[in-house]
Amino acid sequence: MPSVTLAPAGDYLTLSHGASDMRFHAIWLRDNASDPDTRAEANGQRLIALRDIPADTTIAEATLDGERLRLRFMPENKTVAYDLSWLQAHTYDKARPEKAGWLADGVETWDAGLMDGVPTGDFAALEAGGAALGDWLGAVTRYGFGKVVNGPVEDGALFRVVDLFGHVRETNYGRHFEVRTEVNPTNLAFTGLGLQAHTDNPYRDPVPTIQVLYCLESSAAGGENMVVDGFAAALRLKAENEAYFNVLAEHCARFEYAGEAGVCLISRRPMIELAPDGELIGVRFNNRSLAAVQDVPFEKMALYYAAYRRFGEIIDDTAMEVTFRLNPGEAFVVDNTRVLHARKGYSGEGTRWLQGCYADKDGLRSVYDAWRRQALAEAAE
Amino acid sequence: MPSVTLAPAGDYLTLSHGASDMRFHAIWLRDNASDPDTRAEANGQRLIALRDIPADTTIAEATLDGERLRLRFMPENKTVAYDLSWLQAHTYDKARPEKAGWLADGVETWDAGLMDGVPTGDFAALEAGGAALGDWLGAVTRYGFGKVVNGPVEDGALFRVVDLFGHVRETNYGRHFEVRTEVNPTNLAFTGLGLQAHTDNPYRDPVPTIQVLYCLESSAAGGENMVVDGFAAALRLKAENEAYFNVLAEHCARFEYAGEAGVCLISRRPMIELAPDGELIGVRFNNRSLAAVQDVPFEKMALYYAAYRRFGEIIDDTAMEVTFRLNPGEAFVVDNTRVLHARKGYSGEGTRWLQGCYADKDGLRSVYDAWRRQALAEAAE
Repeated sequence: MPSVTLAPAGDYLTLSHGASDMRFHAIWLRDNASDPDTRAEANGQRLIALRDIPADTTIAEATLDGERLRLRFMPENKTVAYDLSWLQAHTYDKARPEKAGWLADGVETWDAGLMDGVPTGDFAALEAGGAALGDWLGAVTRYGFGKVVNGPVEDGALFRVVDLFGHVRETNYGRHFEVRTEVNPTNLAFTGLGLQAHTDNPYRDPVPTIQVLYCLESSAAGGENMVVDGFAAALRLKAENEAYFNVLAEHCARFEYAGEAGVCLISRRPMIELAPDGELIGVRFNNRSLAAVQDVPFEKMALYYAAYRRFGEIIDDTAMEVTFRLNPGEAFVVDNTRVLHARKGYSGEGTRWLQGCYADKDGLRSVYDAWRRQALAEAAE
Repeated sequence: MPSVTLAPAGDYLTLSHGASDMRFHAIWLRDNASDPDTRAEANGQRLIALRDIPADTTIAEATLDGERLRLRFMPENKTVAYDLSWLQAHTYDKARPEKAGWLADGVETWDAGLMDGVPTGDFAALEAGGAALGDWLGAVTRYGFGKVVNGPVEDGALFRVVDLFGHVRETNYGRHFEVRTEVNPTNLAFTGLGLQAHTDNPYRDPVPTIQVLYCLESSAAGGENMVVDGFAAALRLKAENEAYFNVLAEHCARFEYAGEAGVCLISRRPMIELAPDGELIGVRFNNRSLAAVQDVPFEKMALYYAAYRRFGEIIDDTAMEVTFRLNPGEAFVVDNTRVLHARKGYSGEGTRWLQGCYADKDGLRSVYDAWRRQALAEAAE
């Protein structure tokens, strides 16, 4: 049986439910009330600001009514009810990861062992939506990349992949860009050379958080695509040498691209990005566009370069990479804040033509979460 | 006269130039060589990765030749020359801000005193480009917002503002959104109520870093726009109470918008965002979309709410706000990672119609920096 205890001053309460005690402050509870005067019923947005809630808010009365907790707040003399399940799901009175480098729920790191389990969606099934799309988006969220197969071999088909989950992020490279061999490249991605695994456009801030690459022609030998989990690489670096991980997380690198007229893109961000509480949230790695690093003190620069070198060695380790060949009508999608991608070298004989574009992962995550919420709601009916 | 000294092991050198001694590591110098085998001449991208540079790289010889420093690296036995001015501009052997909350060069905080100095560009002059555009972009970079006046009163004119510096960031709200009174609002921005100053879409990750609002009709009384410098507000909070500033910077808030079918946008980011070395780089503040904060320990939640309250009071202080009325054909642009905006309440009589859209500030900054580099180069000729 759940029980509730009010603190003497009424500034917080303790909810005992099952084995756990969860404390909630009066001000937090009042701010998170879901009554129609606090939250709009149509869209869930809060109708009041914190300035509308008295600073000396206390709980005068707390009563349990089945799976509901009813509270009366003073000085407003306002009564609000909460679902116990909602309170349990939103508790903040809990143990937290103490060490930097933890991962959000649902994120799973991988290495070459994922080669046989690449998340793959059938183009038509994905466009039909429902569980096929939901499952694929879930896998992309979990692993940071996914393939699409059996798509049309037509100019612009990549936009139909983006339409599955979001919107194109247009840049100075256009709504999309062509990836072919060119004689006078303005960007190294357009040559026949192999490229070290990298994240795209780290010189943008914000970086494009999703990249789509769609294959239209592929008769040249070589040119396989490969991906590396930047989170797995960062955590391996940490396991090997915590000082290496820390020096890359605690100092900003700089990236720059000024390779065409009228463009001068510069960013100052770390190679390994952590949230303030240590969640691993991003990786930037790109030898081509790394500018002179100026934000590391002289005393730490040798360590920084040793860490950067080792991070690159881990990224280059074939035990980390998943390789696949894109055939015409196939595409892959990567979370560009996490998963590095590369192309193996290919010969000049035959042709290889990919179209690429950028999008944002908040949209992908939104479509996935909305689908999952609806699926859960339907399952509960 | 500049002079150079090699460390005995050759792992770094000391450049004495004017009053300052600057040390540079051999590995940093080698990685930042600009010879045509290291950097592509056409676009400046690095042609090699760190794996191509020996880990035991040392400087065997260093000679000064006027304004050039010539180095011979071992074991490659490779000679590279550097401009002394480039080395001075990119030194990392220097004092750094010790306290959190410092601002990048060129960023200037402001309050209501800027009312008479709002950065304003004439639509036609901005479209003509050159110094008028460069100066206005520079002001937007410095202050985080700017007005455009004398523009056409026509549907979609806001896209011509975006064309000045970048590309639209399309979202689930479309390429643009209409801001008018609506009977059954799905988002509170579409009502006649006044809104507390806020940043837009903190539930996105990345947030749209630029917002453009363009006025097409304005016959209703009221509805003035106002902006508040979130950086100024955060630094005032810090000056008043450093614990308040720190608790908002060190813990993630959560934001959510799930107010329409198929949309479930959730983010976990701090209200005050710092780079790992303490640069103040972002503010998120939005009472409507703040979700239940779960990432603050129980012991700090009362402090967190006190800090959030005070931050809101500072934001609400009229001494912080710059207010202006947008007339038809006028627009404003805000850096949505820094400057909060709001609308005063307006009456139901008459009409008010704005069109809004999002874009990204890296593009704006790129156009500005490219213009500035070219202007400096032309001035030097």
